[in-house]
Amino acid sequence: MKKVLIANRGEIAVRIIRACKELGIQSVAVYSEADADALHVKLADEAYCIGPKLSKDSYLSFPALLSVAEKTGADGIHPGYGFVAENAEFAEACETAGIKFIGPSSDSIKVMGIKDVARATMEEAGVPLVPGTGIVPDIETGVKWAHEIGFPVIIKATAGGGGKGIRVARTEEDLRKGIDITQKEAAAAFGNPGVYLEKFIEYFRHCEIQVLADSFGNTIHLGERDCTVQRRMQKLVEEAPSPALSEERRAEMGQAAVTAAKACSYEGAGTIEFIYDYQEDRFYFMEMNTRIQVEHPVTEMITGVDLVQQQLKIASGEKLTYTQEDIKINGWAIECRINAENAYKNFMPSAGTVDTYVVPGGYGVRIDSAVYAGYTIPPFYDSMVAKLIVHADTRDEAIAKMNRALSEFEVSGPGIHTTIPFHEALMNNDVFQSAKFNTKFLEENDVLGIANKA
Amino acid sequence: MKKVLIANRGEIAVRIIRACKELGIQSVAVYSEADADALHVKLADEAYCIGPKLSKDSYLSFPALLSVAEKTGADGIHPGYGFVAENAEFAEACETAGIKFIGPSSDSIKVMGIKDVARATMEEAGVPLVPGTGIVPDIETGVKWAHEIGFPVIIKATAGGGGKGIRVARTEEDLRKGIDITQKEAAAAFGNPGVYLEKFIEYFRHCEIQVLADSFGNTIHLGERDCTVQRRMQKLVEEAPSPALSEERRAEMGQAAVTAAKACSYEGAGTIEFIYDYQEDRFYFMEMNTRIQVEHPVTEMITGVDLVQQQLKIASGEKLTYTQEDIKINGWAIECRINAENAYKNFMPSAGTVDTYVVPGGYGVRIDSAVYAGYTIPPFYDSMVAKLIVHADTRDEAIAKMNRALSEFEVSGPGIHTTIPFHEALMNNDVFQSAKFNTKFLEENDVLGIANKA
Repeated sequence: MKKVLIANRGEIAVRIIRACKELGIQSVAVYSEADADALHVKLADEAYCIGPKLSKDSYLSFPALLSVAEKTGADGIHPGYGFVAENAEFAEACETAGIKFIGPSSDSIKVMGIKDVARATMEEAGVPLVPGTGIVPDIETGVKWAHEIGFPVIIKATAGGGGKGIRVARTEEDLRKGIDITQKEAAAAFGNPGVYLEKFIEYFRHCEIQVLADSFGNTIHLGERDCTVQRRMQKLVEEAPSPALSEERRAEMGQAAVTAAKACSYEGAGTIEFIYDYQEDRFYFMEMNTRIQVEHPVTEMITGVDLVQQQLKIASGEKLTYTQEDIKINGWAIECRINAENAYKNFMPSAGTVDTYVVPGGYGVRIDSAVYAGYTIPPFYDSMVAKLIVHADTRDEAIAKMNRALSEFEVSGPGIHTTIPFHEALMNNDVFQSAKFNTKFLEENDVLGIANKA
Repeated sequence: MKKVLIANRGEIAVRIIRACKELGIQSVAVYSEADADALHVKLADEAYCIGPKLSKDSYLSFPALLSVAEKTGADGIHPGYGFVAENAEFAEACETAGIKFIGPSSDSIKVMGIKDVARATMEEAGVPLVPGTGIVPDIETGVKWAHEIGFPVIIKATAGGGGKGIRVARTEEDLRKGIDITQKEAAAAFGNPGVYLEKFIEYFRHCEIQVLADSFGNTIHLGERDCTVQRRMQKLVEEAPSPALSEERRAEMGQAAVTAAKACSYEGAGTIEFIYDYQEDRFYFMEMNTRIQVEHPVTEMITGVDLVQQQLKIASGEKLTYTQEDIKINGWAIECRINAENAYKNFMPSAGTVDTYVVPGGYGVRIDSAVYAGYTIPPFYDSMVAKLIVHADTRDEAIAKMNRALSEFEVSGPGIHTTIPFHEALMNNDVFQSAKFNTKFLEENDVLGIANKA
């Protein structure tokens, strides 16, 4: 692979350009009219405007992306994350155009992108799934099945989606009423009264396994990341390894991830997300992300493997040079997502022009960012503008290092707020430090002490 | 240790403050009147002006340093490198004042600071020294000894110094004349005609071994650094490991360094510098630096050991938690010293105000710097303003990463020049890439292509 088009913007576009440069691959940036001054445009070997500010007219435009790829003679397209990264149709369009989509085949994306198909594929492969049932034929059978699964359970309309047609039942009484109501609602809303039951895992940690697979069928995993610190399902802080997993469970989860990747003939870098039920010490397949993830750096820090370089090498048809035995976990890494948001005002986006941009430095500190002094953060895209990653020997040392690094980090300008103060509060929070929390942590803890200040 | 005074400025003061923060130690900065806006002043918990711009009145003033230490209740003083770092009198003054000098004892500094004593101590300990003779009694004996050592040899006046009373003899004829002339010159200049001979190693690599020793006598080494890229004896680029050493020689050199450190009852972080005669595949003791060195980060990158944290822990009376077996070399690291100098104008210093300061980021890139946008580099001190360090799996990958990182690095302002263009040229130089060079590399190669341009 000699020239790669990066179908993305922001820090991930910068990340990919860097990997290209290090491998001697020419990089082609694309940008919307709102991104003419973006860092990825400055750093790439070539850069082309592909349309107006709205993503649908630029970063999501197949014809715009493919025509630049053809015009510039790019051998491959790296989609980054978001935008066209998990779009099977785009991958297919690349395949048709004879341009390598740097990621899995469109077929793999489809298998993992359609939840039913993914679940069936995982079940067949023997990857643990959240216990569930078929369509409930009648209330008594439903009650019997619910006892088999164990309460609480979720009643889900088979035709539902988007949070609709879902109801939690904590008792048999809840369940009897719930099946009846959900069936009626589903019949009215979707024209299909069918409901099924699934175990409701209320308190869990989000653990995920990074995998790499080459085009020769060699598949390895690179340990887990713990992304339990979330706000409204959005990850804010990720760490690796997970402080919650035993060695045994870690090994099982890694093996399950490799099985999952093989089951969909995966190629490239991918992530299998798991629900880790720490009370029962069991894990269940959640979904597979068929792309590089925001939080990939924490895995790089503890394994020493450059995942984006690996993506490029695999896409070039190279064999993996790592075996599973080569992958050793070394120390502890934490990533804080620096978003242009005001954490004290409900994480309200606060874009604007950055006057002052001072990044922390020194040993064990990494910055993946798309910001520079004078840069105007456009309001049209993701509010994440930088990632601060630290690496140390232990979790406590990594927290101390993150605290030190955050204290040096300055992003300011008229109207600009970032999540840096939130991360500082989090690093000093007892619960976070104890590592004993679940995905409801931020919901249940006033990390910023806003209640006290009000 | 709860509070540490940092008797230094620039990037090393910042480096030490960071280590203090990560260990929960309060930091006290000191600064000259020229350094009121320096980064170390901003980052420390406390900061005190200790005098005017000239070092002798500020950073070298024992009373100023000690009075701030006493006033602030600092338990220890970290001298960094330069200034009072290898000043046995200062270490002694700290000892007298009951403040821990973060480094070896004044006795160890003295042993290693006086060249004759150091040489005698090393000889007794069995550390390899450049072969030499006693005072030459007459020319015929001198010729006999020179043949034993092997030509070329250096004729050195025993009372000489500072480059005076030294003469290289490449042949017997040279030697006969040289002994006679040098004896006469020495008699006239120093009132002592005594000369001795030493093997002249014209082509060598500068290799040095990092050691750590605690106050319980536990001493380990952390492999070598190769600092062969020098200009007028000033190191410009350092790498670790050395591309020139065999595993066998590396192990021997490491062992010799531990022996050297033990021979002077060393405590803390220190470096034993060696002349590596690659033609003969032999190494010789050059000198010991009884302090942290500028180039310490390359060792940190390949060993995972935070040397400045280790200094602080050792000074606190902690035992080393690493044994020699724990130290594993991982990958390859390169450091480029970014000096405020115009490489195209004979490395002329070019201080001034930095308008734009954009540092490279991403995986495997580290910046240790004292610069920020708006900072005025004062002309009174060392011209080194930042260090760019990269870490990758192999030397070639590290060079590619350094190239990538240098291309992102921007330090500009009215009148400001840096050595970034020099480093870019060097990373793309065939001889540098081949790793086959010696300390005369920059003297003998027009890396910047200035001759072509003229």
